[in-house]
Amino acid sequence: MLTKLAQYPTFQVFLALAAAVALVALLTPLFIRLLNHRQIGQQVRADGPAGHLKKQGTPTMGGVVILVVVALVFGVLTYWAAPEATNSSFDKLVNYNLAVRAAVLVLVTTLACGLLGMIDDLEKVAYERSLGLKARAKIIGQVLIALASATAAVNWVHISTKLQLPATRMYLDLGIVTTRFSLWGAAIQLPWLYLAFAVFMIVALSNSVNLTDGLDGLAAGIVMIVMLVFAAIAYAQNSLPVSLLAGAITGACIGFLWYNSHPAEIFMGDTGSLGLGGAVAALAMVTKTELLLPLIGGVFVAEALSVIIQVLVYKRFKKRVFKMAPIHHHFEMLGWSETKVMVRFWIIAGSFVALGFVIFFFQFTRLGS
Amino acid sequence: MLTKLAQYPTFQVFLALAAAVALVALLTPLFIRLLNHRQIGQQVRADGPAGHLKKQGTPTMGGVVILVVVALVFGVLTYWAAPEATNSSFDKLVNYNLAVRAAVLVLVTTLACGLLGMIDDLEKVAYERSLGLKARAKIIGQVLIALASATAAVNWVHISTKLQLPATRMYLDLGIVTTRFSLWGAAIQLPWLYLAFAVFMIVALSNSVNLTDGLDGLAAGIVMIVMLVFAAIAYAQNSLPVSLLAGAITGACIGFLWYNSHPAEIFMGDTGSLGLGGAVAALAMVTKTELLLPLIGGVFVAEALSVIIQVLVYKRFKKRVFKMAPIHHHFEMLGWSETKVMVRFWIIAGSFVALGFVIFFFQFTRLGS
Repeated sequence: MLTKLAQYPTFQVFLALAAAVALVALLTPLFIRLLNHRQIGQQVRADGPAGHLKKQGTPTMGGVVILVVVALVFGVLTYWAAPEATNSSFDKLVNYNLAVRAAVLVLVTTLACGLLGMIDDLEKVAYERSLGLKARAKIIGQVLIALASATAAVNWVHISTKLQLPATRMYLDLGIVTTRFSLWGAAIQLPWLYLAFAVFMIVALSNSVNLTDGLDGLAAGIVMIVMLVFAAIAYAQNSLPVSLLAGAITGACIGFLWYNSHPAEIFMGDTGSLGLGGAVAALAMVTKTELLLPLIGGVFVAEALSVIIQVLVYKRFKKRVFKMAPIHHHFEMLGWSETKVMVRFWIIAGSFVALGFVIFFFQFTRLGS
Repeated sequence: MLTKLAQYPTFQVFLALAAAVALVALLTPLFIRLLNHRQIGQQVRADGPAGHLKKQGTPTMGGVVILVVVALVFGVLTYWAAPEATNSSFDKLVNYNLAVRAAVLVLVTTLACGLLGMIDDLEKVAYERSLGLKARAKIIGQVLIALASATAAVNWVHISTKLQLPATRMYLDLGIVTTRFSLWGAAIQLPWLYLAFAVFMIVALSNSVNLTDGLDGLAAGIVMIVMLVFAAIAYAQNSLPVSLLAGAITGACIGFLWYNSHPAEIFMGDTGSLGLGGAVAALAMVTKTELLLPLIGGVFVAEALSVIIQVLVYKRFKKRVFKMAPIHHHFEMLGWSETKVMVRFWIIAGSFVALGFVIFFFQFTRLGS
């Protein structure tokens, strides 16, 4: 019976989600014990809300568990779920293989961003300060990862360099300006406009999720919600491995929330936030929903914008637009409890995501015709 | 375009959910102001956790807004979504009309249970005590509502009196012992076994949700999760009006959570908890998932059982199994924050619900054959 059930893609995605919840929930306490034993804790930013100073010393780098579990669950389930070559048509197999590539690309991007975040986290611990890697080194690392990821998306996953304008059937072709060169005999395309766009998207998202991760349960919960819609989008696109991966990330976030809700026993750290941010952007890339991303990831965009606006306006007018940036601290300053900020931001994220899915659904079902 | 979109059932359910979120979120502050103006607040149980005494005086009866919005959204959208008689086959119309009846039955049951809860809430306010209506009066009221609801389910919605055993294709026929009598010329069936079962289910669920509602965001969040799966189940059964109604209740709970998360600005009161409990049970009845309900509503069952076990064991052995019942207080006593209990119970509820849906899905897709 289980084997029969396992043939159902819905069930596979569910299984990825459930397995990830369970594994993260089981492994995180062990990880917390390890960190406490080695006395590795979070350094809290000195200029944050005063109430947050008590978070000093909370174990961090919980993202390690999230990313390891996601890689494991995805690997095992994709191996298990792979269609038998003998039963499938050639076209079906080619499509499936491309979907596997798309998912692997997302996973590798996620892990690379996470690794960069981990170096950052470890630097913080070593030097006992709230800021780790030098900003420039971090950005350079992110740009390099994003560039490799976007190039692989075009050349290995063969995604289109066109962007679909949401709620229309119009496309922007960002691949017009293309260079080709040969490496070990293989032709490599470099469509500059699309690469620049994708690199910006990956770097921006990775940092936005990082900014969002300043309050118990906030980033993990919102990534969970966003991942759920990517699982649905990939599923609707018949891209099972991508859906599986998004499902596993959803589950990992849920398992992590068990410990990360207020008061948090562990933070995801830059390992988690940079990694998950990379995952969100890479998923938008391989599902070709790049222009829906500002809506689906609306909360991340708002968090990033709040910081940019705060800094720019302060530099120019010496006035603060928000009581404190990123914007979740603004609401804390207004007297919302951490729990309220979390629940309300989740609700807002859910609304953005739902709206984004309706627009996707509208295009997918070709209602416009 | 919107009219085209409106023909899609998925979109209608989404719209019901979104409209309910927005309306509850908009109306609740007005309701809070009204209650504060009239100085109507919650009386906290004297034997609860000491930390809960500060909740004394928080406005209650937020369930009024939830139920009014649900009725409104359901009414408007069902009217709007109704298929045109000229375009539909006779069979399709009959099925649709039965589905409307099923939804109306669930709504009326919900409102009746809510009204009973409201009387209870008003008694509490009037006499300034934590317990309102006398227990016996409340139970009698619930049994009468449940009896009317179950009888209408059999005679008006024409549901089967058979129960499907989960994960099998076996049925228990609880309609064997049936009496028929005539009222104003119409034959009325009274299948005693099924009626007794359904009455127990409705009364038990209504009271279980009531017990669950002892911690900020707990009951509203879990009902939200449970309703989402009923929306999916009804949708899979092609029962659009029922799905719409469950979607509206999901949305109403989300909107309510905006204010009900810790520290709560308003409680749903018995109006909300008895009403929503009635809704859950009535939905299980009309979707014929009665035997899945203990799993889907697993948290409610656990909450009720914890009270029963606590009382029975204490009477017999003078020992307490839980530090405090219902079980959410037990975990609070263990040092979990209110937020953590809420998030973790949500996660557990989500796991129960997901497992329940997999079993439903298994039966629905007839994998057993």
